[in-house]
Order: sequence, then structure tokens, then C-alpha cells
Amino acid sequence: MLEQIKEPNDIKDISEERLYGLANEIRRFLIRTISNTGGHLASNLGAVELTIALHRVYDLPKDKIIWDVGHQAYTHKILTGRIDEFQNLRKEGGISGFPRRSESECDSYDTGHSSTSISAGLGYVKARELTGADYDVVAVIGDGALTGGMAYEALNNASLIDKNFVIVLNDNAMSISKSIGGMADYLNEIRTSAHYRDFKEGVTSALKSIPVVGEHVVERLRKTKSGLKQLFIPGMLFENMGITYLGPVDGHNIRHMIKTLRTAKKVQGPVIVHVLTHKGKGYAPAINDPSKFHGTSAFDLNTGEAKSESAKTYSDVFSETVMEMAKENKKIVAVTAAMKEGTGLSEFAESYPKRFFDVGIAEEHAVSFSTALALGGMLPVAAIYSSFLQRSFDQVMMDACMQNAHVIFAIDRAGFVGEDGKSHQGLFDLSYLNMMPGMTVMAPKNGIELAQMLKFAQELKGPVAIRYPKGKASNSLDDISSEIITGKAEIIKNGKEVAILAVGAMTEVAVKASEMLRKAGIEPTVVNMRFVKPFDEETVCTLAKENKLIVTLEENVKNGGFGMNVLELLNRKNIDTNVYIGAVEDHFVSHASISRQRELNGLDEDSVAEKIRELMSR
Amino acid sequence: MLEQIKEPNDIKDISEERLYGLANEIRRFLIRTISNTGGHLASNLGAVELTIALHRVYDLPKDKIIWDVGHQAYTHKILTGRIDEFQNLRKEGGISGFPRRSESECDSYDTGHSSTSISAGLGYVKARELTGADYDVVAVIGDGALTGGMAYEALNNASLIDKNFVIVLNDNAMSISKSIGGMADYLNEIRTSAHYRDFKEGVTSALKSIPVVGEHVVERLRKTKSGLKQLFIPGMLFENMGITYLGPVDGHNIRHMIKTLRTAKKVQGPVIVHVLTHKGKGYAPAINDPSKFHGTSAFDLNTGEAKSESAKTYSDVFSETVMEMAKENKKIVAVTAAMKEGTGLSEFAESYPKRFFDVGIAEEHAVSFSTALALGGMLPVAAIYSSFLQRSFDQVMMDACMQNAHVIFAIDRAGFVGEDGKSHQGLFDLSYLNMMPGMTVMAPKNGIELAQMLKFAQELKGPVAIRYPKGKASNSLDDISSEIITGKAEIIKNGKEVAILAVGAMTEVAVKASEMLRKAGIEPTVVNMRFVKPFDEETVCTLAKENKLIVTLEENVKNGGFGMNVLELLNRKNIDTNVYIGAVEDHFVSHASISRQRELNGLDEDSVAEKIRELMSR
Repeated sequence: MLEQIKEPNDIKDISEERLYGLANEIRRFLIRTISNTGGHLASNLGAVELTIALHRVYDLPKDKIIWDVGHQAYTHKILTGRIDEFQNLRKEGGISGFPRRSESECDSYDTGHSSTSISAGLGYVKARELTGADYDVVAVIGDGALTGGMAYEALNNASLIDKNFVIVLNDNAMSISKSIGGMADYLNEIRTSAHYRDFKEGVTSALKSIPVVGEHVVERLRKTKSGLKQLFIPGMLFENMGITYLGPVDGHNIRHMIKTLRTAKKVQGPVIVHVLTHKGKGYAPAINDPSKFHGTSAFDLNTGEAKSESAKTYSDVFSETVMEMAKENKKIVAVTAAMKEGTGLSEFAESYPKRFFDVGIAEEHAVSFSTALALGGMLPVAAIYSSFLQRSFDQVMMDACMQNAHVIFAIDRAGFVGEDGKSHQGLFDLSYLNMMPGMTVMAPKNGIELAQMLKFAQELKGPVAIRYPKGKASNSLDDISSEIITGKAEIIKNGKEVAILAVGAMTEVAVKASEMLRKAGIEPTVVNMRFVKPFDEETVCTLAKENKLIVTLEENVKNGGFGMNVLELLNRKNIDTNVYIGAVEDHFVSHASISRQRELNGLDEDSVAEKIRELMSR
Repeated sequence: MLEQIKEPNDIKDISEERLYGLANEIRRFLIRTISNTGGHLASNLGAVELTIALHRVYDLPKDKIIWDVGHQAYTHKILTGRIDEFQNLRKEGGISGFPRRSESECDSYDTGHSSTSISAGLGYVKARELTGADYDVVAVIGDGALTGGMAYEALNNASLIDKNFVIVLNDNAMSISKSIGGMADYLNEIRTSAHYRDFKEGVTSALKSIPVVGEHVVERLRKTKSGLKQLFIPGMLFENMGITYLGPVDGHNIRHMIKTLRTAKKVQGPVIVHVLTHKGKGYAPAINDPSKFHGTSAFDLNTGEAKSESAKTYSDVFSETVMEMAKENKKIVAVTAAMKEGTGLSEFAESYPKRFFDVGIAEEHAVSFSTALALGGMLPVAAIYSSFLQRSFDQVMMDACMQNAHVIFAIDRAGFVGEDGKSHQGLFDLSYLNMMPGMTVMAPKNGIELAQMLKFAQELKGPVAIRYPKGKASNSLDDISSEIITGKAEIIKNGKEVAILAVGAMTEVAVKASEMLRKAGIEPTVVNMRFVKPFDEETVCTLAKENKLIVTLEENVKNGGFGMNVLELLNRKNIDTNVYIGAVEDHFVSHASISRQRELNGLDEDSVAEKIRELMSR
């Protein structure tokens, strides 16, 4: 049937009985496609029937469906006529793995980071009212995203509206990791409340059986605004906040969901439809290990094993090192925000369950919590992706830095991240950390140095950030290793006329570029900066005086990054050397492979060598 | 009795009956002192008895009391031996208006920004467990701060602990403005639930009266884990999240609070003590207008009127202008996060209730909500203080900028803010906004230009930020006014040899400095940059070529700010002029008057003139 779906609303021509067949087709398509392209699998498999139900009930592009985080929107993309583009999913020039307004009118809000959908939905609801437009608004949010504070800020505001607004809670009991906390327990209680429902009915009939007043009591209970309603409906926590609750509904029963969504449409005011789904449904390897198949590279269809060889990643190095550190140093605790597997903390969590804290998708809490752990005498290692740490910009500055708390920020996925694109790039952290008083910022040249830096960070005072790339840990300069000293750079190659000051992974690029340049008779000095804050002013000044050209390289935006700080130093010291800043210009970097992203931004070895050749020939 | 309180725990020597007298003394002291020094009045008046009760039940500095936001901690400071220092409250070198660990061992966590206390408390609870220490942990959070998402992130995590942790909910139904949303309604329902309690008792006895099974049903209801408990306790929303609820308690009844806190201490796991207080209690002007007395300058004790003449502030200009704009432009809506009065939106809220949104202390939601309002066809003006907009760094970038949504960010309190000190300075916004692709950043030289810029921003595309200072709107350059053109600076004075490139309020400083310099025979060109992003590269290059020295001035940290961007331009264009960047060095700026903060950071006219004289004489 999939071939019948050419454009939005085509699904409405398929009879309701045949929709289950369509769901199976979509599921097979997703498994086959993602096994080739990589992408988010488990969450998409869980949302197939839910998406079908939504597309039956709503009219696109008129109505606004907002997908929280957005990685679960593949079926939505298929049902809005983008199936042919899946061969280029997350590839350069191809469709994004997230909703993108630039891609289709049916994508009403660009997402990527968690917990924004209810806020966005409320914005559309109010805009609809004020512009006099006529459309429906639906936010689809996972139970994982519901652990993010801003979702609650929005729920708190939802009670203020009196027009229809449907929030579909896609509850699979998982974020990337298992969902966390009181809300997860509460949802789980609803999920497993069959016996409670029996009891409830028992009480109701007991009440009704009271002569004369019985019926009246039950009637009054139904109508009361107070918490007694809990006798009748399971989602009282939401009702308490002024939001109508419908559910729970089986998220793989299309008919039941359609019926409930139609009911929800009629509610004046905000309404939550609680849908229970299974992450990874229909593909055994994904059901058995949904975290692994949250976001995946290409894999073997039969075994579920990754096709690419599994080289040791920076996350693996972090994992091993933090285990070693924790064994020696009893003060070490690890904190993450629903990135246990991704950051490499699974083993730590198993070995040191009492010293491990996965706080859910809650980066703000993670940072203030870590700060107090430090003030209380522990040494927290907060492992958070660069892009997601943006969420706690204020807490890193106002809690950790302002109190000079010794928290080690292990910032994974810094630099280009490849296929996830715009919303997930780790291209801002050097800038936003540089401006924070008291912060130390490091970046390792390879895996060995990451381990060194993590251990070294234990001895520092105050907040420390170590940022390192996504993917395979470089081992290209393993033979070059020296002691780490605060604020000191490491000279990798001595040369003349031009010096390359490289940050982290750019060191390898600088070395390769310098090898290419030798053929042109140019012999650059290559420096591994190690510290971006405080950086090695002495070495930089000396090199600036001795060379004609200084080149800085960083996988970060130029604005506020390392290169600009070098300019500031040289200006302050009245040193007049030419400087070329190799960094990302002022734009969002779209999805493509990491190597293409480097090329497109002039940060691969060819571009760097070419640029230096050009500048030296002037 | 106040003279008996010399150090922590002295309050324990006073008999319980006399504590009410002490409360009155403290209240009189606070009103008298703050009428002289200015400070946070209303919240402190509300928390006197609560603080007394806490100090009776807990031992300081052993136990950790964490004050959310922290402006309500004056009584805590008095009871920990700091009463004599109140004459220098919030003055240079004096005590801070917020808890500061550097000030007293009894301050266990530095606050200033909202909603961090539960996270911090959980950090201490876990550190206590892991270090084997023995102390109690109490987070004191207002109902306003509870609208902030990270408080919910922390509540969600609180359920995971099994050791005692007391959260005191200081519920006065206010943040700075009236508290907002479903949670506020819910708390209000508890507050006014006397009649509900009667009904509850009625149902209970109805149930009990059922022959044979009646008593059994009631017993089972008490024990059940499910929501039926709501029959018996009011705070079921919290219980649903796994947190024991005690209350509500009268927050001015010391005896009752002490009793409840002692009960709370015995609970294994997290427990909320819901305390009802009255903001401004004991001072009629503050009760009648708690928003005005949230943070106040010195005032007349009898009338409550401010002592300083009430000059027109930038917030006033914003207020008038946005009213004008809204009248003409039906697309204009205003969004703020519990800063209605402070940002100057009260009149707007009254005139256009349907187009006004105070979302509570919820900056993250505010920005994503505004983004969707823009995508839905409205033109949102989001008025948020510079320091608090840090909370939505990620949403400004990933929602507004990534989707190029036309949201006007009206950023009040940018630059030095004076007495509130470290946690409230608006010294980072130019840096964090500069790095965001697609953002336009403006700063007006005076009140008239703020109005011009706001109107001009309507015609732009994409996100626009206008940042302006706290306090009196400058009218010093009212006679100089020219049309605003995107990315174009305004030449204020033509001179020679040195050019001062000033951002916003620094224009006035530059003009004054240039007048002083004339006596020394130096005649600087003075430029009002107007745009920090995109800034006027042409004018800057021309001036750099024509002058010996370029001076940039901005009330912002140097790192990532305007000056560094000027360096980057001149480096890129190979222009070799000396540049002096006048900006705030890499440190947090403590409380003092705004003029002193300028002096201490070299940004007053004397320092600027002196610096230029020195540089020109080299």
C-alpha cells in the first residue's frame, strides 16, 4: 500500500482495516532503510501506528503536528510524500532526520532538542486565536522528553488556555535510556493499574449501593473539582494542573487511538492523550536493546550488528578512564542527563550504582545538582553532549563557575557531529565556556590525551571542561605525549615562518596539512594547544614574534572562539603578526558526514594546506 | 531581643512565646533598614516567622538551608550574626542581598537565579550519603520559583532518594508578579480547600457507615498506593510524584511550623512542607503593592514612596513604545517571564490582555512559545532581563535563530545592574547573542533611540535583540538623531587620530570622555555603533585606516563581545591599527552602585579619557 502514499492525506483513502497492513509495510521499510543509512530506529518503530492515527484524524499541512525532539517523525515524513527521499536520509543534501520546515509544509516546527513541543504548540494555539485562523494543534511528546523542565513550564501554562490543544504523550517508558524519576513511576503506575481500576469500580459500586444518598455521592464525586475525581480517572496529576486526561490508550491499536483522538479534539482546553507504545516494536534486536537502536549507524538486518568496524571511540576512552579514576578516587561520582550509553557510563553505572546519577533529560538540574555534590565534598564528572549542555548555560555559569565548584564537565560530541545536523552540532561550546569566569577549558588531540586530561582534571580547582569529538578516538599522534601542565601547550612539530595553533582534534589535521605543505617548501610549526582557557599566552606570543603567519584551527564557531582570543592577546601585546582563524563561520551546519562538514567549512587538511599556501605566497 | 542574636543558634535561647516578639522586631528592623538602603522587602517580610522556625529546628552551619533565588534570606542573615552589616547591605564591600558562601559558613549555596534549590539540595543529600556526613538538608523554594522548569526536573529526581530531604514550599501566591498557571491554581485550591475538607470527611463517614465492608474500604483507601489517597491529603500532585506532602501550614504561626518541620525531619525520603505566607506582611504599602516592594530603592517609611526622583527609565520608554506599536500593529504580542512590572508591561497587559503573556518564571518556555507565535503569524516582543535570558540560551539559538523566527527580544537590565551584584549583571548577552547565526543585535544610545529601534525592529526579518540598561533612560544626546539603517553606525562627533566605537549606553561615556580629552588636545571621533550584529564593517574599516587608535567600549565581558569582533574584522581586512578594547575583564562583578561598577571596570568617562591619553602619548 505504501506506493499509494504520494502526498499528505493520501492515507485517508485506505480503509481502516488495511491500516494495520500499512503499518507493517512501513515498519519493514524503516528497518530495511535504516539498516542501510543509519538513523533513529527504535523510536520510529514505536510510533508507526500512532503516526497513522494522527494522519487519519488531522489534515496536513493545515493542522500543526509538532514532534518533540523529532527523531520519531520518520513515518510522518513517509506519510507526507517523502518516502523516495529516504535513500538520502541524513546525507548531504538529503532529508534531515528531524522535522524541518524548509523540507515540507507539513513540518510545522523544527526540533532536535528535547521538551519544546508543548511550548511551541501553545504558541500556535495562541497565534490561531489571535489571527482568527482555523487549524488544530497537536504536540507529540515522549515520556522521556517530559522529564525536561521546560515541558513542565509549558504544561503549567497550558491550563491558561480555553481552546482545544492536544498533547499526545507517547509513553514507551524510555528516553534514550530508561525514563527516570517520580513522573516515570507515576506513568508506570497508570500503566499497570488494571487491579487499581478493579478496586475503583468496587468502591464506586459500594458507594452507589448506599441507600438514598449513594447515587448522589457518586454523582457529586464526578462533578467535584477537587481531587476526588481521582476515583474515576488515572491521570489525576495532569488534571490537578488543569489539563484533561484521556487514556491510557494502546499505542498500537489504530482504531482505539483514532477514537480517542477524535474525543480529544472536542475538548475545550488542553487535553493529554496518554498513548502506550513499545520502543523498537517489530524488530527483535531493537526491542531487546532499544538504547543501542535509539540512533544507530548502518547495521546488518539479520543480526542487528553494526556494519562498520567498531573502533574505539572517545566515549569508550572516557568510559575506561572514568572507571579507573573511580577505583582510585572515592570522591568521583558520575552525572548524566539521559546519555548513559552515549557518553559511555554504562559500566560505571553497573560498577558504582550509588555513585552514578542519570537525572533524565534534565541538563539544568544535572549541573546544579553536580555543583552541590562538589560543594558537599564529592568530585562530580558531568558527562553531557556539547549541544545539550547549551541547555544549562546559565547553571554552568551561575552555579558551577560563580561558586568555583570543582565539577569536571566531560563534553562529548564537541565539534562536527555529522548526520544529526544543525540541532546537534557541538560548535558553540568553546565560545560559551570561554566567557565564563573561572572555567578551565581543555581539548585533547587524541584518545590517550583525553585519558590524561580527565585524570589531570582531578587535581585542578574549580570547574573544568574537557571537550572531545564524536566517534573514533584518534590514535594518530600516540607516540607524542608529554605531561599536562595547566595552561601549557604542546609543541608537536618545530617549523618556521608559519605556526599552526590547533585545538583538540584539529591537531591531527594540522599535522597532516603540514606534511602536505612540506612538498611546497613550507614547514609549519604545529602546536597542540591543549588549553583553550587559560591558554598558553607565552608560547603563542613567542611563536607570533618568530613567524610570519599564525593559523588557529578549531571545530567551533569563530565568534567568541579560540582564534578570536588569540587576536585579543596579540593586540594586547602589540604583536603585529598576520593571523588566519580557521573556524566555522556564522551559520548553522547541516547534516552530512563529519568529513564533508570539515571540508565544507575549510577545516580538512586539504583546505588548511591550501589556505596556508595561499597566505604564504602573498 | 534582637541584640541577643550575635551568632547562629542564639535564637535557641529565646523562649517560644517570645519568638513572636522577635519576629516583630525583625520586621521593624527590615522595614527601617531597607527604607534606607533599598533591597528586597516584601519577600523578606513574608518569610520572618518561617526563617525563625527553621533556625529553631536546624543547626547552623552544620545543616544546609538553601534559599531559592535567595532574596528572601535577610532574616537568615540577621539570625546568623550579620545584623550590624545591614547598614552596608548591597553596597560596595558590604553584604550581598543574596546568600553567599564567601560571607558566612551558614550560607550553603549561592543563589540569585530562580529554581535551583531543590537540585542543590539533592546534591547535598547525595554528598552527605556518600561522604558519611551527618547533617540535614532543607531547600526553601517559593511558589513562583516552582514555575521554573528545573525545579520540576529536581522534583522528578527527588523521588529517587530514600533519605530525609525537606523542601519548604514558601507559598505566597506570588513570584515578582502573581504566580501563573496550573500549579498556582492547584496550590490555590489547597489553600482554599476548607470546604473540600468538610466534604472529604462527609464521604469518609459515608463510606464508614456502609455495613460490614465500610470500615474496611476506608482502611484500604488509606493504605493504597494509588491516587485514592487524595481522599485524605491535599497535596496529591506531589505524592503522585513520590514526595510526601505535609500541610498546608500557616507560615506566620511559628509553633505550628516548628511542629511540622520536626515531623518532616523524621520522613525517610523527600518531603514537602507547604507553608502559606503573606508577601509584605507587617507593612501596609508592601501588602498593597508587593510587586513594587519586591526589589525597591530607598523609600519614605510612612508613605512607601521612593525617595529618589522618579526619572523616566528605559523600561518606561519600552513600555510607552510597545503600547504605541501595539496600537498600530495588530500582530504585536508581548511575552514575559514573571517580569511584567519590571520590564514595563503592566499597561500593555491591561490594555491588551489577550495579547499579553506572563508565563511565570519560565524563560525557556517563554522563548519557544514566542518562536511559535511568530511562526503562527504574530510578532512577539519577548521582554526578559539580560541575566535571566541566559536561561534560554539554547532556545534563543535552537528555536528562534534556527527557524529564523521574527521575535523581538527586548533585553532589559543589560550592562551593570548595581546592587543586585554577581548573579544579576547583564554582562554576557552581547557575547552569547553574537555567536548565534541569524541574530540581529542592537543597543540604543539613549531613550529616544530605544524607541526608534523597537519600531525599526518590526520591519526586520528573523530574530532581533535590543539590549538596554537598567535605570534612568539617558537623554544626553537627544538632539542627535538619524534614521536607523540595518548594520549602520551613527557618527556622533568627527575628530582625528583616535576613534571611539561605543555600544549603547557607552556612547554617552564616550562623548564625555572626548570632551575631557579636548583639553589635552585630543579630539576623538565618537561613533554610536547601534548594531553589534551585523555591525558597520565599512565605517569601522574606514576609521581604522584614518586613525592611529581605535577604542571600543561596551558594558559586556570582553570575551566574545563587540571589541573582539572588531579585532577579527581588522585582522581579516589586514588593517594594522592599534585597538583598545574597553570591556569587562574575565571576572564576576560584585554589588556596588552602577557608577562604581563602571569605575572599577574602567568604563566611566574618567577612566576612558585617562586610558586614551595614556595610549596616545606612547
